[in-house]
Amino acid sequence: MNYEGRGQRLRQIMGEKQIDVCLIWDPDNQYYFSGFRAISYSRPIVYLVCKDQTDLIVPALEELHAAEKARGSHIHVYYEQIEMAHKESSYRDHLDKLLARYPKGARLGVEMNSLSAGMFLYLQKKGFELADIGLFIMEMRFIKDSDEIALLKVAGQLSDYAVAESLSHARVGISELELDAYGDKLLLEMASDLYENDIIGYENWTCSGPNSVKPHLYSSTRKFEPGDVVIHSRQVWFNGYRAENERTFIVGKPTEKQKDLFKLAVEAQRVGMEMIKPGIAAREVDLAAYEVFKKAGYGEYVNHRIGHGLGLTEHEEPYLRFDNSLVLQEGMVFTIEPGVYVPGVGGFRHSDTVILTKEGSFSITQHTRNVEDLIFQ
Amino acid sequence: MNYEGRGQRLRQIMGEKQIDVCLIWDPDNQYYFSGFRAISYSRPIVYLVCKDQTDLIVPALEELHAAEKARGSHIHVYYEQIEMAHKESSYRDHLDKLLARYPKGARLGVEMNSLSAGMFLYLQKKGFELADIGLFIMEMRFIKDSDEIALLKVAGQLSDYAVAESLSHARVGISELELDAYGDKLLLEMASDLYENDIIGYENWTCSGPNSVKPHLYSSTRKFEPGDVVIHSRQVWFNGYRAENERTFIVGKPTEKQKDLFKLAVEAQRVGMEMIKPGIAAREVDLAAYEVFKKAGYGEYVNHRIGHGLGLTEHEEPYLRFDNSLVLQEGMVFTIEPGVYVPGVGGFRHSDTVILTKEGSFSITQHTRNVEDLIFQ
Repeated sequence: MNYEGRGQRLRQIMGEKQIDVCLIWDPDNQYYFSGFRAISYSRPIVYLVCKDQTDLIVPALEELHAAEKARGSHIHVYYEQIEMAHKESSYRDHLDKLLARYPKGARLGVEMNSLSAGMFLYLQKKGFELADIGLFIMEMRFIKDSDEIALLKVAGQLSDYAVAESLSHARVGISELELDAYGDKLLLEMASDLYENDIIGYENWTCSGPNSVKPHLYSSTRKFEPGDVVIHSRQVWFNGYRAENERTFIVGKPTEKQKDLFKLAVEAQRVGMEMIKPGIAAREVDLAAYEVFKKAGYGEYVNHRIGHGLGLTEHEEPYLRFDNSLVLQEGMVFTIEPGVYVPGVGGFRHSDTVILTKEGSFSITQHTRNVEDLIFQ
Repeated sequence: MNYEGRGQRLRQIMGEKQIDVCLIWDPDNQYYFSGFRAISYSRPIVYLVCKDQTDLIVPALEELHAAEKARGSHIHVYYEQIEMAHKESSYRDHLDKLLARYPKGARLGVEMNSLSAGMFLYLQKKGFELADIGLFIMEMRFIKDSDEIALLKVAGQLSDYAVAESLSHARVGISELELDAYGDKLLLEMASDLYENDIIGYENWTCSGPNSVKPHLYSSTRKFEPGDVVIHSRQVWFNGYRAENERTFIVGKPTEKQKDLFKLAVEAQRVGMEMIKPGIAAREVDLAAYEVFKKAGYGEYVNHRIGHGLGLTEHEEPYLRFDNSLVLQEGMVFTIEPGVYVPGVGGFRHSDTVILTKEGSFSITQHTRNVEDLIFQ
């Protein structure tokens, strides 16, 4: 990964915005710049970037991990055992010292959307002038380079294996969570066969029957019943980079109306995938897919945008939304997932992950989208 | 769940602190008060509590879900499709209207540690006086009632099935992620057999061989080698309530030193579990377990506290840490997980989840802790 180039670009932005030092709080941004990502929870990790060095504040249990991954950073360790009580026992002990290098009124770049209000007040009290750097980091992350795209492609391929395996077990009587588990197991076996020392992450949400009209639900122990429409959603990430892969399917015999709506959602997705390319505005992709639903008389049953950016975070900007006029560029990555949700009939949504190229775009997820292949008797 | 009682208690605190309205941003706190929890990501959800009503702001795709789960709340929907563009298209549109009910200078309770700096500035600009309510909500959540304990017990039992299944597959050549997958699959099958319409969540982290000395790492495709020490960590949650269950094991033949350190970690955990009860200070539990390591000459290889509170969040306060003098109470729930990490030898840590009762405490996780049962040839 081009950590050096990312650091240079951040410093260039800092120069333009007259920012003396950046405090990076968001774990995905920390990983983006340093290559280090911890399971942090209740132990804060802080990454500081100034003109000529980077400092990483970590709890003691991350000391070895940070030394291995965040090469080039000065690592500052805080402790939570009594024999080290004379040293730093909180991230703030280090932060106080590191920030004391800057004069009152220095400009400190922070991510206003990730930093907590408590931290904001703490930094403000020190006399810093706080400026939002989050937007600029987000914009850097919009465009994926070839290293990132290589990881995304692996994630996409792995997600296809997992979706295929889960769906091969679709039948009356198995639960949403069991469906998820089949795909997970194969995913992790395949990945372990193919890769040596890599991190695979996975998340699933399967909503079945009456719950398929609620687009975002955690999977439950509900068992499939004859005639259920089911939306199986899956994200797989490979060393942090995520592919999203979602398929609607039907257990048992669908009604004609269900088949029609299924095909309508497939068509809306096809339109969106065909339209997305560099040079087009985000809103146009959303509106084109929406138009498919509207023309068929189902506009009122659409309740979300057609897609979102994807990379290190579950949902990233830019959003493919009716009011976003951002012009898309080569190297951006999006989900294309128009959905229609009709109470009493079912919810219908596929999601694929597409990468924008000079020529247009291609999908890194390929599982079949046809209704005929997604009915399980 | 006693949502009514929780609301009453929050309003009592609001009265004492002269807070006019609370803005609850943290998803776990929203779930605690309302029973509604969404997969939110990029679409904010806001829960407002004032003297005589509660308001829930949700994106359109959560409308049906919120109506079902957050009974008693006024639900305000924002939209992201063009035909609704004349209505609210952001959570802030609703928030502006709802907060306009209060005069300038009104006191608004917020969670300073979860609210973003951006939201803080937005609310401050409206002329509210912002007060931290997060600490008081956290204190309410310290003590679990009988409904919560019932869910925790189920989570503990399910986690035992999963850990047993994963460990039954421990052998040279399988990967960290494959080990995780075996337990997940059985967990979700068992849960689906036992429960009708419940939500099970699960997370695992398995660190093997040289990585066992780094206490917190994501599982990877690394395959076990002869002589590996492995720490398998698992959290399982049942309708939101979490049990933590971690076991160290050895693949192949351990060295005498590895066996000694294993037994030392087991002894430290035994001491911690025996000591924890209502009336004792958090710090005493941490120090007692630490003393076991120190006496054996391994104090410098301890790099984290003995445990944390547990419930709806992965790690919750209170923390069992050397500098926390909080006196423990009946109904609190903790992990007990002293660890020792010696480079070149291995990392050793079991974690169990204990509930404090009038009589002392009991563990809701029961998998064997003995080194003899945790060596897999």
